[in-house]
Amino acid sequence: MTTLTASAKKVRVGIVNITGYVGVELARLLFLHPQVEIASVSGRSSAGKKVGEVFPHLSLIDLEITSEIAEVDIAFVALPHKESAPVVVSLLNKGIRVIDISADFRLKDNTLYPEWYGFIHPAPELLSEAVYGLPELYRNEISGARLVANPGCYPTSAILALAPLAKNSLIGNHVIIDSKSGVSGAGRSPSLKTHYCETNESISAYALEGHRHLPEIEQELAYFMHGTKPVATFVPHLTPMTRGILTTTYASLNTKQISESFDTESLKTLYGDFYQDEPFIKIVSSPPSSKQVWGSNMCLIYPTIDKRTNHTVIVSTIDNIVKGAAGQAVQNMNIMLALPETTGLESLAIYP
Amino acid sequence: MTTLTASAKKVRVGIVNITGYVGVELARLLFLHPQVEIASVSGRSSAGKKVGEVFPHLSLIDLEITSEIAEVDIAFVALPHKESAPVVVSLLNKGIRVIDISADFRLKDNTLYPEWYGFIHPAPELLSEAVYGLPELYRNEISGARLVANPGCYPTSAILALAPLAKNSLIGNHVIIDSKSGVSGAGRSPSLKTHYCETNESISAYALEGHRHLPEIEQELAYFMHGTKPVATFVPHLTPMTRGILTTTYASLNTKQISESFDTESLKTLYGDFYQDEPFIKIVSSPPSSKQVWGSNMCLIYPTIDKRTNHTVIVSTIDNIVKGAAGQAVQNMNIMLALPETTGLESLAIYP
Amino acid sequence: MTTLTASAKKVRVGIVNITGYVGVELARLLFLHPQVEIASVSGRSSAGKKVGEVFPHLSLIDLEITSEIAEVDIAFVALPHKESAPVVVSLLNKGIRVIDISADFRLKDNTLYPEWYGFIHPAPELLSEAVYGLPELYRNEISGARLVANPGCYPTSAILALAPLAKNSLIGNHVIIDSKSGVSGAGRSPSLKTHYCETNESISAYALEGHRHLPEIEQELAYFMHGTKPVATFVPHLTPMTRGILTTTYASLNTKQISESFDTESLKTLYGDFYQDEPFIKIVSSPPSSKQVWGSNMCLIYPTIDKRTNHTVIVSTIDNIVKGAAGQAVQNMNIMLALPETTGLESLAIYP
Amino acid sequence: MTTLTASAKKVRVGIVNITGYVGVELARLLFLHPQVEIASVSGRSSAGKKVGEVFPHLSLIDLEITSEIAEVDIAFVALPHKESAPVVVSLLNKGIRVIDISADFRLKDNTLYPEWYGFIHPAPELLSEAVYGLPELYRNEISGARLVANPGCYPTSAILALAPLAKNSLIGNHVIIDSKSGVSGAGRSPSLKTHYCETNESISAYALEGHRHLPEIEQELAYFMHGTKPVATFVPHLTPMTRGILTTTYASLNTKQISESFDTESLKTLYGDFYQDEPFIKIVSSPPSSKQVWGSNMCLIYPTIDKRTNHTVIVSTIDNIVKGAAGQAVQNMNIMLALPETTGLESLAIYP
Repeated sequence: MTTLTASAKKVRVGIVNITGYVGVELARLLFLHPQVEIASVSGRSSAGKKVGEVFPHLSLIDLEITSEIAEVDIAFVALPHKESAPVVVSLLNKGIRVIDISADFRLKDNTLYPEWYGFIHPAPELLSEAVYGLPELYRNEISGARLVANPGCYPTSAILALAPLAKNSLIGNHVIIDSKSGVSGAGRSPSLKTHYCETNESISAYALEGHRHLPEIEQELAYFMHGTKPVATFVPHLTPMTRGILTTTYASLNTKQISESFDTESLKTLYGDFYQDEPFIKIVSSPPSSKQVWGSNMCLIYPTIDKRTNHTVIVSTIDNIVKGAAGQAVQNMNIMLALPETTGLESLAIYP
Repeated sequence: MTTLTASAKKVRVGIVNITGYVGVELARLLFLHPQVEIASVSGRSSAGKKVGEVFPHLSLIDLEITSEIAEVDIAFVALPHKESAPVVVSLLNKGIRVIDISADFRLKDNTLYPEWYGFIHPAPELLSEAVYGLPELYRNEISGARLVANPGCYPTSAILALAPLAKNSLIGNHVIIDSKSGVSGAGRSPSLKTHYCETNESISAYALEGHRHLPEIEQELAYFMHGTKPVATFVPHLTPMTRGILTTTYASLNTKQISESFDTESLKTLYGDFYQDEPFIKIVSSPPSSKQVWGSNMCLIYPTIDKRTNHTVIVSTIDNIVKGAAGQAVQNMNIMLALPETTGLESLAIYP
Repeated sequence: MTTLTASAKKVRVGIVNITGYVGVELARLLFLHPQVEIASVSGRSSAGKKVGEVFPHLSLIDLEITSEIAEVDIAFVALPHKESAPVVVSLLNKGIRVIDISADFRLKDNTLYPEWYGFIHPAPELLSEAVYGLPELYRNEISGARLVANPGCYPTSAILALAPLAKNSLIGNHVIIDSKSGVSGAGRSPSLKTHYCETNESISAYALEGHRHLPEIEQELAYFMHGTKPVATFVPHLTPMTRGILTTTYASLNTKQISESFDTESLKTLYGDFYQDEPFIKIVSSPPSSKQVWGSNMCLIYPTIDKRTNHTVIVSTIDNIVKGAAGQAVQNMNIMLALPETTGLESLAIYP
Repeated sequence: MTTLTASAKKVRVGIVNITGYVGVELARLLFLHPQVEIASVSGRSSAGKKVGEVFPHLSLIDLEITSEIAEVDIAFVALPHKESAPVVVSLLNKGIRVIDISADFRLKDNTLYPEWYGFIHPAPELLSEAVYGLPELYRNEISGARLVANPGCYPTSAILALAPLAKNSLIGNHVIIDSKSGVSGAGRSPSLKTHYCETNESISAYALEGHRHLPEIEQELAYFMHGTKPVATFVPHLTPMTRGILTTTYASLNTKQISESFDTESLKTLYGDFYQDEPFIKIVSSPPSSKQVWGSNMCLIYPTIDKRTNHTVIVSTIDNIVKGAAGQAVQNMNIMLALPETTGLESLAIYP
């Protein structure tokens, strides 16, 4: 069906664990990417089957799912945390550049892994080398990286929303992050939690005792905050939709720093300047809905100031599987390959 | 179909504007209420039709929709704000007790009406008489009231969540209220906002410049707060489901007031004590989902303390059309009639 | 919360396998039934827990889930097929009347069990005694029955739609039944098929090679068809909603039997007469939506004739868990106990 | 954001009525098409606004919506029926090739317009010239056409499902078509029918008295049926999802024509041969779900024979806005421009 012809030699990429929702979205995006070729895909329970047997909509990808991926130029690792780290080490040792979708190389402080993820990190020496793959903040570091730690979906939506405030010292050190995610964030394995009848017509908060994405958010906010240690209250919510994250963040204004006349318009200008050259970030003039980014790599941000209470309220939205996972990984790959950053990510949101 | 027999003389009730979602839910609940009889219902565009013509599931209610309701003992007024006030005045003048579902008699300070609702109140003298119809707080006042102002759906979920904190001076005066509502809260009139294709698979924040339920929340919190003026940051979200509100509230702990050892368990005990005799409030031990109250008059509350940040995070959930509107109105009626408060409201949540 | 007082001595009922969607719905309905008392409930994986631990919305039912039910007057058996039969036999042997929700006693011909359900029936001698629990057709037989086989959800919607045609010889012997069911029909056990992300925004046909409800439908149609053996083409569809079945049936008109002037209006009259005293069946004058019966025990039927093609097209809808399972079981129980048939089933559909 | 460079001179295309769901989908697809340039878009209520003001996700399309479109090479007309015809005539008179999405040029017999659409056709002389834009059947005629009548969404799913049967005389002349469509098929104008709360958790049949797509289906089936006049019973259903159509067709086997041994496998082979070179049609080996084509231009077909009843049951599925409207229109444009037929339509279905 595709009319692409292999003119120049394409970069060979591999997907480890294609059978999860991120793996399958990587396959969709990479299949149409003009500069790469999906050379190898691996899976666990589905090893031995053709891609199209497991995912009919991907039947044009004429590959067998193997238990390990073959030699490639770049590997995307879409395994669960803890399972990912040893595979990443093994790939790096073969000279393969890696974009890891799991959390295994996102945290710089290895003592956080036992606390938040329940395992002792097997390769702590790689944590400083790994680059946190948020292109809007670390583009230069990503370009030459051997190992990119692709950010979590919640942190992507929260950090992009808060970075301009943190960088400019506009807020106090405590932020409240109220995130609403679609069900695909819970993964493809069936469970009562993801059963249609339990989730449809229902919204709930979870992980109030502390979600694993919290240290990642605090680590990255600290990067900007000039020595102040930020603390975050973070409450994720399971929302009855397949895709999308909408995050509403609240923080007190640093009124010492800013003048009386600083208002929502000033804030929008500041955000516009901060992200002016970013192809995937748009500052919007009315509250965004998650549908406006459905299927695309865009992040929409709506910054406001509540003068009554001297707080900023920032709403941001992404597609959790695209900008929150697979799309961002492709964006990172483009940077690593010195390709235009939007290559293969031009699709607009699907509406309605 | 019903086997109820009119043993004792029943109380005659009327529903003004039966054709909205609250009106139709009132009809459903009151039809099966053993002590009352729906004697008259009015509507605007549907006047002249039978109830069952407009709402097939209510065809057992053998009444014609009229343009005005007849003489009844108690009237439920389910009109939009501003339209409600003159009708309420007229009913009161006829000696009819009124439960007003609109916002027209909720605020005590009449200067708030021009600011938040855009009209000058036509009967400010009634504002002090009107009782705010939250039975858990004003049961005694409701019992003898001539006019009950039924609370808004968002305020019900927020005030019930925060009342124990405010009453016990456990929090600072600023609260953040992040609410997620189903689409029925937007009413039955078609609009692009409520179009299935615009709303399905999408969540959005709205009214960031200030939602009309805000002054109502602040007014009621102030009632408890011993002279401190509370301020609230309130952000409602439109969620892709028909019914339900889930509200997550955040407030800083008043650490002067409470000891180091005060923790989530202490808070749960305090909430349990505060609401111990309430038939429609339950303190739950895991985060509730809105589906757990679907179709019922229950409010579930999950109180927690985030020790890392010294904040309380309280999650509450109600069915916006039942405890958030029609069910609460029936509860108020029961109190006004000295009936057991749960009469006609015994239905459990529908699951799944 | 309930204000019911145990005036007369109540009938003791038990629910075998309360933890499935039908079991939990039985609990909801029976809890508010004024003439019965839930005396015992059993479950498998949840044995030893309180009902409210597993289902928070049922926490008013103060019972422990046991591995077997205690002595009761009537037992509802909500086990999967094949597992049900031996339990039913054991209960009958204890003198307990049984309403079996499974398919194990619905078919009269025991040779159909190996063919359609893959097991040899362990108690074929009970098949002739068991009464097919469709009250509209077998009310008299149900009243004195020791064992009622509660119909399947699809058959209920199809047989009620077709019975007036079959009885009056208005159609040929081949019928096409195109049914659309909500996801709860697939049960509460998690699977990829019922995963929210797989089911939402998707509709599919299944079991085209022959669904297990087919012989049940043909058996009951044959009952009416005066010696003609009916054959049915039956295709069920999985629809992205929690509850509800809408069935569209197609059959050629028996033009020998009916006059030229017989039209849709004549057909509606015929249906109206056929079901005139039925509290749970309503012939409607515009195409029904499944939402119009959501949560209620009603069946709506819309009969039409397509003159262009000389076919009848009948649309019927039920709530698959109520009239298609638990509600119909309670209706059967009422008949067995000589109670008014609508007792405990008066709730109107929930809208919106 | 896009990295496309205008190497060769691009074809200038226009979209009449961009503000409906088909118009906006055309914009999404054409914006990324490498060989065309969206040169002009028109709308009615939104004239004077920028595209991005009305549809934020299309803000990269830097055009003002005008009341009429400018001179272009090809125009897509996405107006409602009756409104479309005069606009099409006017565009043709300017020498612009037209792809009309409405029904105004689909029917060859002009007497059908008053009967089914309620208006007298203003340009009946064009009906014979207009080519029915189903590429799988009329590819040659489309290539040189001045006016293409893009098929309806239901007819596309039904005709593609039935064409191999009709062409090979495998079925009798009566077919039953039971179609289930997502809500976007009802258009973007708000109405009670498309209100989220009315549609969610509900399925319904409609237009049982005769849907407007019926004559279109019969016309095209007749094309194949060697002089036999086909008649169709067609019942559309409104399904709670945004996109997608799943159609289940039933027809009696022409047992004179086919041998005893002809079975489902034989039928699959016949379908595979019939559509072997079609890039957008896939014969699948298990029942398809509408999600498998979500956002793509594919049509999946699952052909079966029910030996018990000697009927064929064919299940087909498309995305109603893509292969059922905008995608098919782009496919037609590609043929008209002698481009590879898949250009701009390579996107795979979005999953989950």
